[in-house]
Amino acid sequence: MAPPVRSVLPVVLLGCGGVGRHLLRHIVSCRPLHANQGVAIRVVGVADSSSLLVADLHSNGLDDALLTDLCAAKSAGSPLSSLLSRVSGQCQIFNNPEARTKVIDTASVLGKTTGLVLVDCSATYDTVGMLKDAVDCGCCVVLANKKPLTCTYEDFEKLVSNFRRIRFESTVGAGLPVIASVSRILSSGDPISRIVGSLSGTLGYVMSELEDGKRFSEVVKAAKSLGYTEPDPRDDLSGMDVARKALILARLLGQQISMEDINVESLYPRELGPDAMSTKDFLESGLVQLDKSIEERVKAASLKGNVLRYVCKIEGKGCQVGLQELPKNSALGRLRGSDNVVEIYSRCYESAPLVIQGAGAGNDTTAAGVLADIVDLQDLFHKTD
Amino acid sequence: MAPPVRSVLPVVLLGCGGVGRHLLRHIVSCRPLHANQGVAIRVVGVADSSSLLVADLHSNGLDDALLTDLCAAKSAGSPLSSLLSRVSGQCQIFNNPEARTKVIDTASVLGKTTGLVLVDCSATYDTVGMLKDAVDCGCCVVLANKKPLTCTYEDFEKLVSNFRRIRFESTVGAGLPVIASVSRILSSGDPISRIVGSLSGTLGYVMSELEDGKRFSEVVKAAKSLGYTEPDPRDDLSGMDVARKALILARLLGQQISMEDINVESLYPRELGPDAMSTKDFLESGLVQLDKSIEERVKAASLKGNVLRYVCKIEGKGCQVGLQELPKNSALGRLRGSDNVVEIYSRCYESAPLVIQGAGAGNDTTAAGVLADIVDLQDLFHKTD
Repeated sequence: MAPPVRSVLPVVLLGCGGVGRHLLRHIVSCRPLHANQGVAIRVVGVADSSSLLVADLHSNGLDDALLTDLCAAKSAGSPLSSLLSRVSGQCQIFNNPEARTKVIDTASVLGKTTGLVLVDCSATYDTVGMLKDAVDCGCCVVLANKKPLTCTYEDFEKLVSNFRRIRFESTVGAGLPVIASVSRILSSGDPISRIVGSLSGTLGYVMSELEDGKRFSEVVKAAKSLGYTEPDPRDDLSGMDVARKALILARLLGQQISMEDINVESLYPRELGPDAMSTKDFLESGLVQLDKSIEERVKAASLKGNVLRYVCKIEGKGCQVGLQELPKNSALGRLRGSDNVVEIYSRCYESAPLVIQGAGAGNDTTAAGVLADIVDLQDLFHKTD
Repeated sequence: MAPPVRSVLPVVLLGCGGVGRHLLRHIVSCRPLHANQGVAIRVVGVADSSSLLVADLHSNGLDDALLTDLCAAKSAGSPLSSLLSRVSGQCQIFNNPEARTKVIDTASVLGKTTGLVLVDCSATYDTVGMLKDAVDCGCCVVLANKKPLTCTYEDFEKLVSNFRRIRFESTVGAGLPVIASVSRILSSGDPISRIVGSLSGTLGYVMSELEDGKRFSEVVKAAKSLGYTEPDPRDDLSGMDVARKALILARLLGQQISMEDINVESLYPRELGPDAMSTKDFLESGLVQLDKSIEERVKAASLKGNVLRYVCKIEGKGCQVGLQELPKNSALGRLRGSDNVVEIYSRCYESAPLVIQGAGAGNDTTAAGVLADIVDLQDLFHKTD
């Protein structure tokens, strides 16, 4: 027999592409598990980039059959608005710009009554305003989307102003417990002196393959055909995605910095960039021009017993993102394949770091991290009736 | 300017030896940090094995000057009762058996009013009764002491019956975020299929040194002189401490088992045990008798490209503790020195595990883990006035 429900968490989800869709599936399939833990997640609304499907606020939220259909529709590439025929008395669909207003209205009503968790699984800067409004209404926020935490420092500060009401584990290393561990260490008064991480599965794979003497251009093409890279591999090679994760970690450690303060090393020069040539040209003739210089750097590192890794390094007041020579026998040096690795140095982990390693990408893993974040907020949603 | 205090956590500490003393020091030194987070920890009582020093329940707890003196006294080997001269109107000292009754009284009063966190940093089975009573009174429990979680399954079940009100990170791998990570994964509905861990810094060191062709007896003696082992190294070599940690992890995964269900491989036979010979005799003549068989096992593993590790393996319905041959290039196989390593396999971490590695012992690190656990309970202690 399941115990009584102790916490009911009303959720509005922004973004129901890959991660958001997996999250909804996890929520539905975890109902018996969460019931056993005394937790109930009530999906009150789901938004894509153009519409919002929202349940009657006095109902128990969107039912699981509708959520399952919604996942199927999004999986088939249809917009949320295609579910219009399914909408009955229990819910309504709003299109932009009404959809955004309705999200804030919902946050405002629920923030003051039952509470609300606004979950951002989109990949856009557009949600920042809604998230800040939700914070003002006393709502909790859970993010898989890195962008709201990487725009202005003021926005970051606002979002984390009540640190117990925000979770963003899946913005760094997908479901890997990096943010949770850093937060634990910080709250125990153990000062973190340095974080070094390989936070791109793509670049981790590429750099470790180079050790075997393969050419850079070959390895990048192999990574692309394995599905490890973005459609244009320069989106990975620019290091900008790593820089966003690094910025989140640096800000978590108290650095009041922004993207422009981070020294980011791109693995291709401007002449081979998206403004200068197409993806096709880059793959066919641009990439090979990078082989020689990378090969030289790999060899130079090897002569010193080191390997080359594309890492972020957060230390003191600074944050760097780029290639680093690291000892072969360190956690980062031993890295093979597409795993993420984070090394955390503190008073307690001074001579040898705390190391967290594992898959740092994938919709399933990212969504699992988001769900763990939501459930972790349960003590703020105690049922009172 | 510090934000208003949102959570006041009253704490009673059982055990003020190494870990407990470090915890009190951390609590005092973290006051400004916690004030910034809106958290205040109020130490209401501290007990050693014979006495309890308890503050007036209407006061703000034992003051920091008294706590600092208490740490100094315990550090110098004096009992709590030596502080009798320091006791004024704000607090009282009770000796056993009154001390135990007073702990329950305090739990009963605070459990129903402000709440209480009963923290067990002792290393005894004697606290189980008090902890269960505290749970009955609605108190929270934080444990560094493994023993209450490793006695009968009924006791374990009782202690974790309200899973949000108990934390026990420091029972496995000291401050390493093992329990927190396993709990996150479980609450996200990602089923854990296997945990393999090297959870003894001593045995981790010993096994990795053997790879270099050193003799077992030499390595154990070196570990002893480095302070890595217990005064009688057989306390490490028996594997019982690893088995207790393994049992906690197995129970966390839902296995309803007890110590006697775990297959524990001792690294010495009964003929060389504490009942048969003294520590001195074991070190002088017993230990060397083990060299040949261990050397053969190390060689046999090496021929297959493996190394020998002393691990716990929790899988399906079983839990084993002992020597295992593991691939040289796995996280466990690469382990050197006294770090702990835990590999977690689940749906999300299927082909490659989630790995957590770092120092898994030490009073400072263990106490930091306990403090992070206490702070993590803050949402249950919202200030209402």
